[in-house]
Amino acid sequence: MRVIVTIRFKEGVLDPEAVAIGRALRELGFDEVRAVRREKRIELELDSSDRAHALARVQAMCEQLLANPVIERYQIELLD
Amino acid sequence: MRVIVTIRFKEGVLDPEAVAIGRALRELGFDEVRAVRREKRIELELDSSDRAHALARVQAMCEQLLANPVIERYQIELLD
Repeated sequence: MRVIVTIRFKEGVLDPEAVAIGRALRELGFDEVRAVRREKRIELELDSSDRAHALARVQAMCEQLLANPVIERYQIELLD
Repeated sequence: MRVIVTIRFKEGVLDPEAVAIGRALRELGFDEVRAVRREKRIELELDSSDRAHALARVQAMCEQLLANPVIERYQIELLD
């Protein structure tokens, strides 16, 4: 089964790398850049066919390793 | 205008962070993880209303800063 995990910063959390990208783009002359946001996408291939079980397992993976629940939120999408 | 840039490693390029994530997940007991791939998504808000011009500008941003064209490929999506 293929699963996509999308991880974003929570609203209101400053993302210093996004700020730095915006600044660097403007310094390169891309003055039209008003805002930059980033997200990470992690695609997992799992040896699993039970969707409910896979979802619970990927939630546990997010909580234990993939995301920082203090400042990030995650979304899980089961593909097949 | 909002633009999404998706950046992935080219096929055949080893992504050491993805390998490390897979190993760490299996060490935590998630033995069902067979493969891990990552991609970055950068959302840009641009002060621009000309789609063709915006696309050309974002291509230049990718080549000059956002992606490493030697090992990464990028995809640009104009949202509105």
